[in-house]
Amino acid sequence: MEEAVALLARTPAVLDALLRDLPDDWIVADEGADTWSPFDVVGHLIHGERTDWLQRIKIILDHGEARAFDKFDRFAQYALSEGRTMASLLDEFATQRQANLRELARLRLTDSDLARRGRHPELGTVTLRQLLATWVAHDLDHVMQISRVMARQYSDEVGPWRAYLRIISGSQG
Amino acid sequence: MEEAVALLARTPAVLDALLRDLPDDWIVADEGADTWSPFDVVGHLIHGERTDWLQRIKIILDHGEARAFDKFDRFAQYALSEGRTMASLLDEFATQRQANLRELARLRLTDSDLARRGRHPELGTVTLRQLLATWVAHDLDHVMQISRVMARQYSDEVGPWRAYLRIISGSQG
Repeated sequence: MEEAVALLARTPAVLDALLRDLPDDWIVADEGADTWSPFDVVGHLIHGERTDWLQRIKIILDHGEARAFDKFDRFAQYALSEGRTMASLLDEFATQRQANLRELARLRLTDSDLARRGRHPELGTVTLRQLLATWVAHDLDHVMQISRVMARQYSDEVGPWRAYLRIISGSQG
Repeated sequence: MEEAVALLARTPAVLDALLRDLPDDWIVADEGADTWSPFDVVGHLIHGERTDWLQRIKIILDHGEARAFDKFDRFAQYALSEGRTMASLLDEFATQRQANLRELARLRLTDSDLARRGRHPELGTVTLRQLLATWVAHDLDHVMQISRVMARQYSDEVGPWRAYLRIISGSQG
């Protein structure tokens, strides 16, 4: 639990260090049709803070498996981010995450709370502990995605080194 | 060129935000035999700053294709990092990177410098421009690797969500 919170608390600073004030070319680049840019990913993370992670924790605590989680809208970031700057998204992500971690601390989850079960609309029974671990892994998944999207802007520029760069070749290192 | 330097300058802060003061369990975790932990990766990046990127730029400027680059030791980090803390490695990476970018700026590379050719011991002819792009993509490759190594420590903990987390399942998103 402490380990998970240690990670969740630092993701906003990681993305800030990586993305704030970066030239726009890096920020809006994606990997082709129906893929996300770093800008889209930060909007997606904000939407998760607003509507998903903590809300699901509360549903488990209040209703257990009796009430399935609300579905998460994977495309909400397009409306959410429209017309905004990366700096404004990074600020909001940091604020929302901090508020959610404060509220999480206030819940004082015990080991038996962590073992409580909830119902995912597609995956079925899950535990609160699994939900917390997923929150962490989901952050890291998107840090990885942003790194990959950015590196791939240099797919041609790296020339023969392409063979050595797993981030571009797509092979798993 | 500016775009590349903007990225190179921020990698130390990204890794600092992600790794400094993190519990040891996260830092020394790897993906199994012959894979690297976040601790190993930072040592590897330091070795690159000390011996590789800027040195290769200078070899191109001084010798062109007449002299092949020195080979890079992909295992030097084990001796380099032994007995050190993550904080000390992060400090050194930041210092070395900053010094190298200062020296890079001092070289005042022109477009025709960027087109100059050098000789990689295995890949053959490469340009200075490709070397610079690779320096950037290599940073991002290792940010990606660290995120992945860390997320995989939760491979079991995430339970059924495993199916949705590409960082754990290994599928490319």
